[in-house]
Amino acid sequence: MQQGYVAVLWVLAVLVVETTALGECELAHLLQHKLQYEMHLQYMKHYFPIGYTVQVQYKEVLRPSNITCLRNRTVSEMALQYLWLHVSSQAVLRIHEVLPEKHPSWKYTQELCQLFDALGKEYSKYWQTDVEVVVADLVKLIHSAGMESRRKAVHPKALLDNCLKVMRMLYRAPCWWEST
Amino acid sequence: MQQGYVAVLWVLAVLVVETTALGECELAHLLQHKLQYEMHLQYMKHYFPIGYTVQVQYKEVLRPSNITCLRNRTVSEMALQYLWLHVSSQAVLRIHEVLPEKHPSWKYTQELCQLFDALGKEYSKYWQTDVEVVVADLVKLIHSAGMESRRKAVHPKALLDNCLKVMRMLYRAPCWWEST
Repeated sequence: MQQGYVAVLWVLAVLVVETTALGECELAHLLQHKLQYEMHLQYMKHYFPIGYTVQVQYKEVLRPSNITCLRNRTVSEMALQYLWLHVSSQAVLRIHEVLPEKHPSWKYTQELCQLFDALGKEYSKYWQTDVEVVVADLVKLIHSAGMESRRKAVHPKALLDNCLKVMRMLYRAPCWWEST
Repeated sequence: MQQGYVAVLWVLAVLVVETTALGECELAHLLQHKLQYEMHLQYMKHYFPIGYTVQVQYKEVLRPSNITCLRNRTVSEMALQYLWLHVSSQAVLRIHEVLPEKHPSWKYTQELCQLFDALGKEYSKYWQTDVEVVVADLVKLIHSAGMESRRKAVHPKALLDNCLKVMRMLYRAPCWWEST
C-alpha cells in the first residue's frame, strides 16, 4: 500500500515537477523514499571505492544534534527545514559533481538534485527572507564559500545518513509521518 | 568468429582454470579480451569517481617505454613477460582491494586476478629462477615493499591501459596475434 502510494507519487513527480508544484509533504515523502537506507547504502557505499570521501565545508554537515541545538535557541521549524534543504541539496550536489555520467549512482544523485530543486521552489513561495538571522547566515556561508574553504572529508553515505535523519526529525510531525 | 572463439575459451577457463592449465597464449588471449579498451573504460573509469586514484609503488607502473629500454639491455622476452605478469597482477590487486564486494567493478577485477593467477601458474612450470638479475630484482622490489613505500597516485584506467599496451607488445609475436 505504502509502496503503491510512493510509486504513484513518483510518476506524478516525474510528470509535473518542472511545471506544477507538489506540496512540501508530498515532495518530502518522495525524497524520504529515495533516501531510504537500503537505497543510499547501495548507491553511496557499495558503488564507491572503500573509504572514498568528498570534500565539504564544515557547515555542510548538518546532524540531528545541530537541529536540537537550534531548536533550543527557538529557531522556527520552517527555518530549520529551510536550512536542511540548503545543506542537503548542496551535499548531494557535491556527490553528483564527482560522478561520471555513466556511473551507476549518477542518475540517483541527479534525481535527488531534481527533488531538492522542486522542494526549494515550493518553499520560495512562502518566504524569501523570513528566516532567523542565525539560519540566514548559515545559508549564506554555504553558498558564498569557494573551493578553498572546503575542509572536511566525508563519506558520501554519511552525508545522506545525516540528511535522512534530520529530514525525519523535521517532517515527521508536520507531514504526519509514522515513526520509523 | 573471433567473439565465438573467445566465448568458448572463456567457458573453458572458468571450468578448468583451477585444475588444468590452458597454455600461455590461450590465457593471454582471454586476458587481452577482458582488458580490451571498451571494457576497462567502463569498469575502471565510468564506474569510479572522477579523478579517483590508487596508491602504487613506482615500480608497479610498467610502460611500453620501460619494455623498450629493457629490450635494449637484451633482457629476454620470457623475462619481460614474467615482469609484466607480476607488475600487472599486483596492479589489478591494488584496484580490487579498494572495491566493496557489491561494487559493479568487483567481479571484473576478481576475474582478472584469477586469470593472472592461472597465467602465473603456467609460467612457474617453465622457470623459477631463470630470469635476468635486473628483472628478478624488480619483481623482488614489487613484492617486498610494504604500504609505506607506495608513493604514486595512479588512475585505475591508466594502470590497465599500460597493462594492455605492454601485453600486446610482448604477446603479439609469440602468440601470433594480429596487429590492433
